[in-house]
Amino acid sequence: MSAAADRLNLTSGHLNAGRKRSSSSVSLKAAEKPFKVTVIGSGNWGTTIAKVVAENCKGYPEVFAPEVQMWVFEEDINGEKLTEIINTRHQNVKYLPNITLPDNLVANPDLIDSVKDVDILVFNIPHQFLPRICGQLKGHVSSHVRAISCLKGFEVGAKGVQLLSSYITENLGIQCGALSGANIATEVAQEHWSETTVAYHIPKDFRGEGKDVDHKVLKALFHRPYFHVSVIEDVAGISICGALKNVVALGCGFVEGLGWGNNASAAIQRVGLGEIIRFGQMFFPESREETYYQESAGVADLITTCAGGRNVKVARLMATSGKDAWECEKELLNGQSAQGLITCKEVHEWLETCGSVEDFPLFEAVYQIVYNNYPMKNLPDMIEELDLHGE
Amino acid sequence: MSAAADRLNLTSGHLNAGRKRSSSSVSLKAAEKPFKVTVIGSGNWGTTIAKVVAENCKGYPEVFAPEVQMWVFEEDINGEKLTEIINTRHQNVKYLPNITLPDNLVANPDLIDSVKDVDILVFNIPHQFLPRICGQLKGHVSSHVRAISCLKGFEVGAKGVQLLSSYITENLGIQCGALSGANIATEVAQEHWSETTVAYHIPKDFRGEGKDVDHKVLKALFHRPYFHVSVIEDVAGISICGALKNVVALGCGFVEGLGWGNNASAAIQRVGLGEIIRFGQMFFPESREETYYQESAGVADLITTCAGGRNVKVARLMATSGKDAWECEKELLNGQSAQGLITCKEVHEWLETCGSVEDFPLFEAVYQIVYNNYPMKNLPDMIEELDLHGE
Repeated sequence: MSAAADRLNLTSGHLNAGRKRSSSSVSLKAAEKPFKVTVIGSGNWGTTIAKVVAENCKGYPEVFAPEVQMWVFEEDINGEKLTEIINTRHQNVKYLPNITLPDNLVANPDLIDSVKDVDILVFNIPHQFLPRICGQLKGHVSSHVRAISCLKGFEVGAKGVQLLSSYITENLGIQCGALSGANIATEVAQEHWSETTVAYHIPKDFRGEGKDVDHKVLKALFHRPYFHVSVIEDVAGISICGALKNVVALGCGFVEGLGWGNNASAAIQRVGLGEIIRFGQMFFPESREETYYQESAGVADLITTCAGGRNVKVARLMATSGKDAWECEKELLNGQSAQGLITCKEVHEWLETCGSVEDFPLFEAVYQIVYNNYPMKNLPDMIEELDLHGE
Repeated sequence: MSAAADRLNLTSGHLNAGRKRSSSSVSLKAAEKPFKVTVIGSGNWGTTIAKVVAENCKGYPEVFAPEVQMWVFEEDINGEKLTEIINTRHQNVKYLPNITLPDNLVANPDLIDSVKDVDILVFNIPHQFLPRICGQLKGHVSSHVRAISCLKGFEVGAKGVQLLSSYITENLGIQCGALSGANIATEVAQEHWSETTVAYHIPKDFRGEGKDVDHKVLKALFHRPYFHVSVIEDVAGISICGALKNVVALGCGFVEGLGWGNNASAAIQRVGLGEIIRFGQMFFPESREETYYQESAGVADLITTCAGGRNVKVARLMATSGKDAWECEKELLNGQSAQGLITCKEVHEWLETCGSVEDFPLFEAVYQIVYNNYPMKNLPDMIEELDLHGE
C-alpha cells in the first residue's frame, strides 16, 4: 500500500467514525482489451499530462496498455534528438527539465505511427497547431477512438464560437471531451497537489462498460494522489472558462499596475466570473452555471490565472510603463504570446456581430484599453455603468 | 459635475451608442425629514466607513442630515483626547493615520448622546464588544431606527448559528442589515476602487419611500465613485461568507507554507467556496446560492482574504516553523487575533452537534490541524476522501 493510501485510510478512520463513504479509488471493471493511450504534444503541459497518464497506465494494467506513446515534434538538442533523450534519459530536457518521466512513456516523432491502434487520444498542443495536426490525422483514426482535449480556449470565427473539442470531433469524427483546471504545469509536474476537471459526454454509440471510455476510465487515467480529478459532463462550461479567464487576468493586471491593491483585483475577478457565466449561458445554453463556481476549471483556474501568469504581467507593465500591449508582450514574453490579447479581440468581434457587447462590460473595457488606448483608470466606471446586476 | 461623473458620461457615450441603461447615480426621493446617521465604532474599518458615510451625507442633503456622529471609545493620545483630535484635525491618528476625514463627521465619546434622534445606525465595532454596546443602547433607540452591521462573522452558541444582524434586531428591536465585501480598510480609505455588498430586508412596518430606509437610501449612503455598492436582500448569505472565509484562508496559508504553490491555494478556495455555500443552504435555507458567487461579499471577499491577511500569515508560519497556532498568532499579530482560529472551533462544535462534520471536510481538516495537531500535508486526502462532489 502506498504512503498516500496509508494516509487516506488513516484520514478515513479518523474522520469517518465508521460511516461509509466513497473513496478516492475507482472501482473499475477490467477492460476486455486494455485501452491504448497516446498523448499528442510534448510541451510543458503536454509532457506533464503525459507523465500523469503514463503513471496511471502503469498502475492500472487491467484497464490500460502500459506503454503510452507521446507524439513529439522532433527537435535537435545539441546534436541529439529530443525523442532519443526522452526515451533514454526519461527527461524532456527542453520543455520540462529536471522532471523524471515514467519509463513506460515512449516519445515518438511520427504522428501517424504514434496513434496506431490507439483507443484514447489526449490532445495537448498549442492551439494554433490544431488544424494542421487534425489534417494529418484524418483517415488514420478510427471513429471508435475517444479523445480528451487539454487545449485551453475556443475558436471564434464567422460561424460563432466553437469549442476546440468540437473542432476535433468535426474534423476527425471522434467523440472528444476536455480537461481543464487550476493547473500551472510545473507545479503539477513537481507533484504539488492540485485539482482538475475532466468533462466528457458519453456518446450515443457507447459500447458498454469495459469496452469503451466512461467517466470511471477517465478518472483512472488522470487522477493521481497529487492531481485530483472531478469528472463531469459539461465540456462547454470548462472550455469557456479556460479561454475567457485570460481576458479577466488582463483586467487584474491593469488594476494591479495602477496600484489599486487586492480589493480591486478581487472585484475584477468577481465581475469577470459573472461575465464568463453569462457568456456560457448565452452561447452554450447546455453549459451549467454550477460548473463555473464549483469546478477547478471554473473559479479555481480563474483565481490561479489572475494571481500571476503572462496576461497579468503584460497588463501590469502596460499600466506602469504606459507602453502598448505589443511592446509589453515583446519585452516580457520572449516571443510567446499573452493569449488574452487575442481572445479579447475575438470575443469583442463576436459580441459585436451578436449585438451583445454591452452585456459584457469588463470584456469590452479590456478590449478598448488594449486596442483603442482607452484610459484604464476608467475601468470602474465602465463596469459600473454597464452593471446589469445593480438596480 | 465631478471628474468621476464626467468620466461616467464619457464612458456612457462611448459604449452605449445611444441605448438607455441604468446609471450609477441613484434617483432618490427627498426625505420628508433627512435621515440622521450615526456610526458606532472608530477602529480602522469603522473610521473608513464613517468617512464614506459622511461624504455621502454631505453630498445628499435632501436625504441625509449632513452631520454624521461617530461614537469613539475615548482614548488618551499623548495627553490629547482622541475625539478632540478627530474633531479638530479631522484625522483618526491612532486607527486610520494619514487619511483626512470629512469635517461633517463628528466624533462623540458618549454612546447614548451619539444616537440621539438617530434614524440609521451603522455598527462597526469588534465582534466581542457587541453584547456590551447593545446592552448600553437598550432603551435609547426607537424601534423606527434602521441599522446596518459592518461586523464580520456570526455567533455560534447552544442555539445554533446566529447572524450578528439578528443579534442586534433581537436585542434592540430594530431592523438590521449587513455590509460586507472585498474591502481591505486601508485601500478603501485611500479611495482605491473596490466593491461591496449591502444586504437589507425591507421590514413589515416599512413607512414608505421618503419616510423610511429602502435599498435606494442605502445605496446613496454607502456608494462612492471608489466604493461600488450592490444592494441585495440576502443578509444571511453575505454574513456567512464573511465569517467562514477566515477558515478557508487558514487552509490557503497551510498549503502556501508547505510550498505547494498557486494551484493548491486555488483548490482550497474552490473547496472552501463549496463548503460556504453548503453551510448557508443547510443552516440558512433562505440564503441564495447566487450571493456566494455573484457578490463582492462572496467570492471576491474570499479571494482577497486568501490572498493575504492575518489568517493566511498565521497558517503559513505554522507550516514553515512547525509552531502551534497560538505561538504563531502571538509572534505575528501583536495581541490581535486571527479570527479563523476561533471560527473553525465554533463551526466544528456546531457541526458536531448537528452530526454534519463530514459534510464539511475542509473546515474539519482546518480544525483538526489547528486543534489536534493533525499533519497538514494530509489536507488533500482529507478533502478528497470526504469529497461529496465526486462520484
